[in-house]
Amino acid sequence: MSGTAQIGVTGLAVMGRNLARNFARNGFTVAVHNRTAAKTRALVEEFGTEGSFVAAESPEEFVAALERPRRLVVMVKAGEPTDAVIKEFAPLLEEGDVIIDGGNAHFEDTRRRERELRERGIHFVGVGISGGEEGALHGPSIMPGGSAESYDSLGPLLERIAAKAPDGTSCVTHVGPDGAGHFVKMVHNGIEYADMQLIAEAYHLLRTVAGYSPAKIAETFRGWNTGRLDSYLIEITAEVLAHVDASTGKPFVDVVEDQAEQKGTGRWTVQIALDLGVPVSGIAEAVFARSLSGHAELREAARSLAGPAAAPLGEAEAAAFAAQVEQALYASKIVSYTQGFHQIQAGSENYDWGVDPGAVAAIWRAGCIIRAAFLDRIRGAYDAQPDLPSLLSDKRFGDEIGAAQDDWRAVIVAAARQGVPVPGFSAALAYYDALRAERLPAALTQGQRDFFGAHTYRRTDREGSFHTLWGGDRSEVSTG
Amino acid sequence: MSGTAQIGVTGLAVMGRNLARNFARNGFTVAVHNRTAAKTRALVEEFGTEGSFVAAESPEEFVAALERPRRLVVMVKAGEPTDAVIKEFAPLLEEGDVIIDGGNAHFEDTRRRERELRERGIHFVGVGISGGEEGALHGPSIMPGGSAESYDSLGPLLERIAAKAPDGTSCVTHVGPDGAGHFVKMVHNGIEYADMQLIAEAYHLLRTVAGYSPAKIAETFRGWNTGRLDSYLIEITAEVLAHVDASTGKPFVDVVEDQAEQKGTGRWTVQIALDLGVPVSGIAEAVFARSLSGHAELREAARSLAGPAAAPLGEAEAAAFAAQVEQALYASKIVSYTQGFHQIQAGSENYDWGVDPGAVAAIWRAGCIIRAAFLDRIRGAYDAQPDLPSLLSDKRFGDEIGAAQDDWRAVIVAAARQGVPVPGFSAALAYYDALRAERLPAALTQGQRDFFGAHTYRRTDREGSFHTLWGGDRSEVSTG
Repeated sequence: MSGTAQIGVTGLAVMGRNLARNFARNGFTVAVHNRTAAKTRALVEEFGTEGSFVAAESPEEFVAALERPRRLVVMVKAGEPTDAVIKEFAPLLEEGDVIIDGGNAHFEDTRRRERELRERGIHFVGVGISGGEEGALHGPSIMPGGSAESYDSLGPLLERIAAKAPDGTSCVTHVGPDGAGHFVKMVHNGIEYADMQLIAEAYHLLRTVAGYSPAKIAETFRGWNTGRLDSYLIEITAEVLAHVDASTGKPFVDVVEDQAEQKGTGRWTVQIALDLGVPVSGIAEAVFARSLSGHAELREAARSLAGPAAAPLGEAEAAAFAAQVEQALYASKIVSYTQGFHQIQAGSENYDWGVDPGAVAAIWRAGCIIRAAFLDRIRGAYDAQPDLPSLLSDKRFGDEIGAAQDDWRAVIVAAARQGVPVPGFSAALAYYDALRAERLPAALTQGQRDFFGAHTYRRTDREGSFHTLWGGDRSEVSTG
Repeated sequence: MSGTAQIGVTGLAVMGRNLARNFARNGFTVAVHNRTAAKTRALVEEFGTEGSFVAAESPEEFVAALERPRRLVVMVKAGEPTDAVIKEFAPLLEEGDVIIDGGNAHFEDTRRRERELRERGIHFVGVGISGGEEGALHGPSIMPGGSAESYDSLGPLLERIAAKAPDGTSCVTHVGPDGAGHFVKMVHNGIEYADMQLIAEAYHLLRTVAGYSPAKIAETFRGWNTGRLDSYLIEITAEVLAHVDASTGKPFVDVVEDQAEQKGTGRWTVQIALDLGVPVSGIAEAVFARSLSGHAELREAARSLAGPAAAPLGEAEAAAFAAQVEQALYASKIVSYTQGFHQIQAGSENYDWGVDPGAVAAIWRAGCIIRAAFLDRIRGAYDAQPDLPSLLSDKRFGDEIGAAQDDWRAVIVAAARQGVPVPGFSAALAYYDALRAERLPAALTQGQRDFFGAHTYRRTDREGSFHTLWGGDRSEVSTG
C-alpha cells in the first residue's frame, strides 16, 4: 500500500522537527515519526497549522504513509543510533526507496551504509545539513551525497527547502556519490573552525596590542562586515562582543570561561586530511587551540613563564594596526579556504566522486555557518577555471593576498614581539611562504632520512632513486 | 619437545637479520626462520661465526627449536603480514609462550592482537624498536609493551641487546601493558618529525637570512652539537650539509629533490593526539611540511605569488643571527618534547598504562634517532617530580625557554619579514604564548558557539552551564 506523504522525517529532536516543519511550510505532505510518540503528537499539535503532517505512531505506519518511491529522512544521533534506525526501517522498504541520513555522520560510515543498502536495492543518501536549528527551519545549506538516481527523486524537494543564495539559486547540489555529501560537510565544519580561530586571534590582537575594549572591537568588526569580510561569523562576532553581561555589567566575553569545546568534525577533518596528504595547518591549529584552552592544569602551571611586557599602542597607531589586522585576517582566510578546497579536491579524487568545487562554494553562500560574500568569489574562481590547482592560483585571490602580505607580516611581527599567540595567522603565512618558495629545506630532510634509514632520495638533475653510502665511502648508488 | 634456543626471529629482512645477529653476538642461541629458506641459510652462512644460530626451514621446526616458554620475535611488515604470521604460528604454541612483534605496528592493532592471544594463553608483546638497521645490530632503544609477566621472561634478553646510555644503563624498560610500547614508539617518531622540521627551518634561515653556504651551516651545526643541542640528528645534519655531490661538485643538499617523504608514524601520532585532545602542533606542522613539499603542482602554481625581497645580513650580523637561531631551535625543541610527553601522559591515562615518562626519556638517551643529551635532563625533570603537569613546568626548562624567548621572537620576526616559512618555530611560540596567557580568546569562541548552535558556555564567576537567548531578549538562562 502506498501513502500520500512525499517525505517522512523520523527523529523529532529540534533538528528533525524543524526540518519537518520546513518541508510542510513549503507545501509538502510530511509523515512524522519518533520513537516516543509524544514528540510526534506535540509537533502536530503545536505546528499542525503550518502545513500537512501525517503523524505515525509505529515504523510500519510511518512507512505506509509515504508515497513511492519512499523518501525517509533519519534525524537521529550519528553512530549506533543511525545504524539502529536503518536496521529497523530497511526491512519495511522496497526497491528504489530512499533513506536519507541528515545527521553529522562520518563519511566513512556513510560509505559503508550506502554500500550495504545498495545491495538490497535501497538508496542511502548521506546529507550534510548546515545552519543549525534556525537553518533547518528557514533554509539550510544542504550537501547530499548518494546516487544520481536518488537525487532525481530527492533534489526537487531539497531545492524547495534549502536556503537561497543572493542570486536566488537554491543552496543544494548533488555533491557526488556515497559519502561525498558528508565529506564536504565535514570540511565545511573544519573551515568553520579555522574561520573562528582567525577571528579569535584578530580579537585578541585588537584587545592586547591595540588596547581596544570589546565594544570598540565590536564596532571594528561591524565595519569589516561591510567590506570583503562580510559574513555571518563576522556579524555574530560583533554581536557577541557588543553584548554586556546583565549580572555583572561587564563585557559578556569577559565573564565567559575561556575554554573552548568541540564536537569532533574539526578533528575528523584534520585526521582525514592527514590520510589524504593535504596540509590543513589552519584547521589543525584551530582544533589544537581549542584543546589547549581546555587544559586548565597545564595553563595554570605555565602562567609564570616569561613573556614580553604588553605595550598597547596610541590611538592613531591603534587604528592603523586594526587595518593591518583586517589584512592579516583576510589573507589567512584565503589560505584556510585554499587548504579546505584542496582537501575537497583530494577527497574527490581519492574516492572518485567528481565533486565540483565551484558548486560547493555556491551552496555555502547562504544557510550555513560560514556563509559569506567571499564564497561567491570562490565560486567565480572555480567557474572560470574548473581545474584550478589551488585557490591561490586564481589571479584575483593571488593579487589580493599579495597586496595584503606586508600588513600580514607586520601583524605577525607585532604578535611575536608582544607575546600574543597567533597560531592560525602564523600557520597561514608559513603555508603561503612555503608554497611559493623556490626551494624548500625538504631536501635536507630527505638527506637525513637517507642517512639514518637508507630511505633514498631523488635528484633534481636526473631520474631515479639514489642512496649515499653514508657509513662507507659516501659514494652514491642508484636504487631504482 | 623443547629446543635450546633462548629466542627466535622470524622474518629475516635487514631489521630481523640484524636483530638476530645482535642476540647471537650477545651470547644467546637464536633460532632463525624466514618464509623463503634461502635467506635463513644466507644469514647462517654469512654470520654463523658471530654466535649460535639454529636455522629452521619450517614453522614447526622453528617452534621446536625454542626453549620453553618460547620467545618468538616477528619481524615482518606491519598490518596484514603480521596477522598472517601470528595466524600461522599461534596454533603451534603453548600456554605461556611469548610472541614479540618488533615491527612498526599501530598500537591499536597491538591492543587487538594482545587481547586475542591472551584469550589463548599466549603473551603478545608489541615492541617499539628505534635506531634503524645499525641500531638493530649494535643496540637499539627498545620499547616493549605487553604483560609484566612476559617482561620477566623477555626483559633480561632485551637488556643485553639494547643500547647503553652514557651512564651504562640499558635503553629498555617495560613501558606498560598491551599497546603501550608501540604507542610510545609512535610518539618517538612524531617527535623525530618535529625535530627534523625544526632543524630544516634553522638551516633554511641560516641559508636565506644569514646567507650562509651549506658548508658554513654544517660548521655551525657542528658547533651546536658540542652544546645543549648535542644529539644524533644535529650530528648527521652537519654530515649531510658538509657532503659534496661527486657528480656535480655542488653541495649535496642542492642536488636532492626538495620533496620529503614519510611512512606514516608521524601522521598516526597527530591523528591519535587529536583523539586524545592533546595539542601537538609542532608534530602536525612537520607532517604538513612534508606533504606540502610533495605537492609539486601546487608549488609550481604558487611560485609567482608576491613576497618580500631577500636581504641577507652582513658577516657580523649573520653570526649574531645564527646565535639567535640556536636559541629559537632550542626553545622550539623544548616545546616539541613538551607536546610529545603530554601525549604520552594522556595516552597512558586514557588506556590506563601507568607509563613512567622519566623512564621513557631514559631509554631514548641512546640507540634511537632522537637520542640526545637533552633527554637526560627530561629524565631528571620527571624523576624530580613524577607528576609534572608539563615539561614547561620544570623550573630548569622554564628558565631556559624564558631566557631564549627574546631571540626566539627575533628569529620569527626575521622569518616573517623575509618570507622564510617557519611553521615549526611559529607553532611552538604560539603554543608557549597560549599556554602562559592569562586569558585566551576561547571565550569568544564559546560565545559564538552559543550564538549559532546553543552550545552553552560556562562562566568565570559561578558554576553551571548557561545559554544566552541571542535571538530573543538576550537574557541568560541556566542550562544545568
